[in-house]
Amino acid sequence: MASPLLLPLAVSLGDPAGVGPEVVAKCWDGRRALGLPPFVAVGDPRSLTQVWDGDIAVIDDPRHAADAFAHGLPLLAVPAAGSSVPGCPTMAGAHCSLDSLELAVGLARSGSVAAVVTGPVSKQQLYAIGFTHPGQTEFVAERCGVSPGNVAMMLAGPTLRTVPVTTHLPLREVADRLTPGLIEARARATLRGLQRNFGLAEPRLAVAGFNPHAGEGGALGREEIEVIQPAIETLQAEGWQVSGPYPADTMFHAAARARYDAALCMYHDQALIPLKALHFEEGVNLTLGLPIVRTSPDHGTAFDIAGEDRADPRAMAAAMRMAADCAAHRAANSPVPGL
Amino acid sequence: MASPLLLPLAVSLGDPAGVGPEVVAKCWDGRRALGLPPFVAVGDPRSLTQVWDGDIAVIDDPRHAADAFAHGLPLLAVPAAGSSVPGCPTMAGAHCSLDSLELAVGLARSGSVAAVVTGPVSKQQLYAIGFTHPGQTEFVAERCGVSPGNVAMMLAGPTLRTVPVTTHLPLREVADRLTPGLIEARARATLRGLQRNFGLAEPRLAVAGFNPHAGEGGALGREEIEVIQPAIETLQAEGWQVSGPYPADTMFHAAARARYDAALCMYHDQALIPLKALHFEEGVNLTLGLPIVRTSPDHGTAFDIAGEDRADPRAMAAAMRMAADCAAHRAANSPVPGL
Repeated sequence: MASPLLLPLAVSLGDPAGVGPEVVAKCWDGRRALGLPPFVAVGDPRSLTQVWDGDIAVIDDPRHAADAFAHGLPLLAVPAAGSSVPGCPTMAGAHCSLDSLELAVGLARSGSVAAVVTGPVSKQQLYAIGFTHPGQTEFVAERCGVSPGNVAMMLAGPTLRTVPVTTHLPLREVADRLTPGLIEARARATLRGLQRNFGLAEPRLAVAGFNPHAGEGGALGREEIEVIQPAIETLQAEGWQVSGPYPADTMFHAAARARYDAALCMYHDQALIPLKALHFEEGVNLTLGLPIVRTSPDHGTAFDIAGEDRADPRAMAAAMRMAADCAAHRAANSPVPGL
Repeated sequence: MASPLLLPLAVSLGDPAGVGPEVVAKCWDGRRALGLPPFVAVGDPRSLTQVWDGDIAVIDDPRHAADAFAHGLPLLAVPAAGSSVPGCPTMAGAHCSLDSLELAVGLARSGSVAAVVTGPVSKQQLYAIGFTHPGQTEFVAERCGVSPGNVAMMLAGPTLRTVPVTTHLPLREVADRLTPGLIEARARATLRGLQRNFGLAEPRLAVAGFNPHAGEGGALGREEIEVIQPAIETLQAEGWQVSGPYPADTMFHAAARARYDAALCMYHDQALIPLKALHFEEGVNLTLGLPIVRTSPDHGTAFDIAGEDRADPRAMAAAMRMAADCAAHRAANSPVPGL
């Protein structure tokens, strides 16, 4: 961590019927062993008490979180209406998860917390209550006044960071969606994000090819020649340390990973297969391009195991540590000391 | 290993100017530490002597390999014409690599060796001398009288085996190339190969989806519904243990890998990204569907480092061990004892 945080993290619990409350509570239980900074949970009190019998410190101001943290899990309560059963999502629970997210982001925007960590929500449930954003990332971007086109999703583990240029698209549509402009925008968000959040003054970005063997000089596809290489040249002309396009299959072994700070990937699975193969239990999703720090564990609500005390808190703990580290790096480099 | 081999392996040295001779020589040097069975090299004597100063035992019959193996690297000599410099491929070297391959395969076909391990060749050089097969795999298949459509390329490491349904195709063409019939053919070659070469009576095959999240019920692509799922159902109806389609990004972490014996992947990088991320130094390429056992290390000629004593022999050693294991499994299950 670049410097200790003066403010707590805000951690939204996500859907009250998912595993979010359980993993956050387990993180508080293991706060010393897991090396976690003070945080305040934001969400439904009952979602915690029905899966956990530890102490909760309900507070109404995040300034009290750091003191309360030693004695109980600090909570800004956003009660869900109606019944609540782990594993059984409800409309009221979806409303609660959205209100919790909104509050947590607002606290970060106003400077009351150091960063936001978002627990897993159910997109299906959110859509059912009229949520029109594809996911939490786009909602957070809008609340921050940033176009979703200018943010990037980074997946990060202990030895690898990847950023997909395209995400939730049918794979057969990806080739036609790739443009030099899109690749450049994601690359810049990634490079600036590495500077701002990780304190890397001259970040190194490795760009993956799209085709097998990165197209092998055009014999196995021309996207590298026509789309990716021009984007790389533009970025290099701007002074960034960008290289590639590399054959995707030889980019992710240990010696290759040591040569870059992040890999820019052309499609969802190209970014997520290596990340999850190597770092499944501790993958963190970090949104780049926002005025605030926002991370989340790289797993979903896992309704099928909610309430069974089986959820693994390691990804949530990693998301909290990364949020704190990124916030500390930003604070250390802020033009206004202390901000 | 299922049972000790009575016959040596034949190991073609590949292109004399590549790293093949060096890694084979290093394997002989480390034969005890690496746990290697007796083998006979097939190729150019000079390609060995100019990168290695160990003892070579030139023989003219593979039956003498096992006795010679204790005292020197057994070699069936296929001299290359003209000059030979590591890192500088020549037409004569390409001819030599092809003749060595032909001889090694012939020895396996005739039952004189237990299996063939093929060193890395240069496709560009082979094409220049009129070689019309896409690679060594197709050449070996033809020499064995098997249609290339009925063989499958398995990439295998200590904790993962993958088989790509399509290989060297532009990624944008893959979706239209996938058919239930093609998936079924590759799956059957894989399943029979697991039975025959690994002694798995009821092999478990996990089939990857094509789109992100395996299409998420059609929202992110329909190949899973229209092509992959029908193939899985056909294979299941035949009695095979086949499951999927699974989201590719959550198939390759340790707990997921423990649930199957091989993963059938839809395209090149889907199979090779996880294999090389996890097992870069010891990846083995095994051709399934042949009457003989054929493996190769999953690396190329590496002309850029040939002759510098920097080549890592671990993948070649892994290819030799796997060839011996597969041959032993086949021998143990052969309907004619001793064959």
